Amino acid sequence: MSSQPPIAPAMMLNIFTTIAGDLQRVEATIEEALVTDVPLLQEVSTHLLHAGGKRIRPALLLLTAKFPGVPLERVLPVAAAVELIHMASLVHDDVVDESRVRRGRPTVNAQWSNQISVLTGDYLFAKAFAMLAQTGNTRVVEIMANTVYEISKGELAQIASYFDVAQTEADYYERIAQKTGYLLAECCRLGGVIAGVEEEQIQALFDYGMGVGLSFQIADDLLDFHGSAKTVGKPVGGDLKLGILTLPVIYALANSADSEELRAIILTRAVGDQQVERAKEILAACGAFDYARQQADHHLAQGQAALDRVPDLETREALKDLAHFVINRSF
Amino acid sequence: MSSQPPIAPAMMLNIFTTIAGDLQRVEATIEEALVTDVPLLQEVSTHLLHAGGKRIRPALLLLTAKFPGVPLERVLPVAAAVELIHMASLVHDDVVDESRVRRGRPTVNAQWSNQISVLTGDYLFAKAFAMLAQTGNTRVVEIMANTVYEISKGELAQIASYFDVAQTEADYYERIAQKTGYLLAECCRLGGVIAGVEEEQIQALFDYGMGVGLSFQIADDLLDFHGSAKTVGKPVGGDLKLGILTLPVIYALANSADSEELRAIILTRAVGDQQVERAKEILAACGAFDYARQQADHHLAQGQAALDRVPDLETREALKDLAHFVINRSF
Repeated sequence: MSSQPPIAPAMMLNIFTTIAGDLQRVEATIEEALVTDVPLLQEVSTHLLHAGGKRIRPALLLLTAKFPGVPLERVLPVAAAVELIHMASLVHDDVVDESRVRRGRPTVNAQWSNQISVLTGDYLFAKAFAMLAQTGNTRVVEIMANTVYEISKGELAQIASYFDVAQTEADYYERIAQKTGYLLAECCRLGGVIAGVEEEQIQALFDYGMGVGLSFQIADDLLDFHGSAKTVGKPVGGDLKLGILTLPVIYALANSADSEELRAIILTRAVGDQQVERAKEILAACGAFDYARQQADHHLAQGQAALDRVPDLETREALKDLAHFVINRSF
Repeated sequence: MSSQPPIAPAMMLNIFTTIAGDLQRVEATIEEALVTDVPLLQEVSTHLLHAGGKRIRPALLLLTAKFPGVPLERVLPVAAAVELIHMASLVHDDVVDESRVRRGRPTVNAQWSNQISVLTGDYLFAKAFAMLAQTGNTRVVEIMANTVYEISKGELAQIASYFDVAQTEADYYERIAQKTGYLLAECCRLGGVIAGVEEEQIQALFDYGMGVGLSFQIADDLLDFHGSAKTVGKPVGGDLKLGILTLPVIYALANSADSEELRAIILTRAVGDQQVERAKEILAACGAFDYARQQADHHLAQGQAALDRVPDLETREALKDLAHFVINRSF
């Protein structure tokens, strides 16, 4: 559910060159945090560490904290903690979604068990909050606790919304804000909080992150229809088969001449490859994919515009690159 | 796993009379914290609230914070948060143990699903940490984050130790400290931290809680052999069947003349009612049950003694009552 679209290596380089060294320090901090005397746990942690991941959240935090005079040491434990929270949330997600593979490797539930996944997720959350508390800044803790709260609520709201043809665009946005937007946006907010800049700039960083996050999730949801199983790493139309209605579907339900047929397909609660193909035709015909692409662009532009309110940030261009990459990625 | 032995109502009254009103305020605080706009989540929360529970952890916190001049308002959110953490840990435990019934009601995984249990647990943890952060005291957050960390490690260590006949008493104590002791001990420590008393008194409160916790868990583990399915709420010998080796078993493996037979029973990894009966004979014959009872008494006495180092605490007698009750409970 929280899988991210693949990133073109060339763009990645551009964006991350600025902070390549910092990210290595984050990696070392994470590795150190996961040292334990329980061999089973060390094995699971090592598996998770080697599974990689693009460290987008620590990167956002590092980039949004780059105000003049902010020492890296102040940012590192928080950057490590947000990645631990993301890892915890993925480990629990894979139990929730019964996923067997992530990033080409077996998930913790596949390689070990649901039991071990649940406990490892808790362990990672707890470690992250202990590290956040060690900053001595309760605002940092509160922001991330509220974020985990929103993520869990979003996932639960999603389960409650399976095959619900009555849901609106507003419902969709609330859900993706909770499951993807907040964590990215709060990482950006934290950058400003740790740097100690004015509230107006902190809010602008949050707005940037939310714009990127919403755009990112809409793009990811579109990929579910247009990627191949090979590039996306999951079957085409997988969301629809599970009953997860994304923006183009919700748009078509409200606007397509064939909305009754689409509704009927969903309400069977047994959507197969043939039904996915027919649904894609209906969505394409009413402009639902174009609409979703426009919305992704719109939120990204809003996010980019927010950066204009953060004049002192040294990494504004790098963050615009990041935004640029999301706009130009192959939907 | 974290089920508690039943409490005699008369003793309960004695102990909790002092703080009955405070506990009602805690209950109201918990209820308020669980209000949400996600109907499914509200349903699950209401189920959990109505499932009751003895609120031992908030009670310990309220009792250990009763130093002169400490306002109840400062203690309430923390007392509510520790109960939310306990609830979260039980909800996740029931997934880990595949339990279908708790306190005579279906578990969240039984009534809804593992998915919803995982997310509800995360939601409760997150809410608790947000409340702890709102105290503005990062030490409070750090203590509870480390506690959740220890609980998760303890549960994972327990899974790794299933049917492990090489484990020692020290391994057992480390495990029960992690899975039961720390949460009780840290609730007591938090009482002192919130009250703002000297470190020496805070440490004494922790020692009291750890003594109670270890004693409590040894007693609970004994109940698994001696309670009836009716009073304990789970089948007799359930731990042994699962491969969880508790103190009397570990003692017998090291000290019984029939230790080879006991070892062989365990190593079949298929322990049924007959094997449990034979194991009970072996344990009784070598004095393993008596030994475990003595150990429970010993840790409780140590806990009680620690209270002598907390002269200003207004509820010392109530806490000794609580300890007294654990000593006198029917093993």
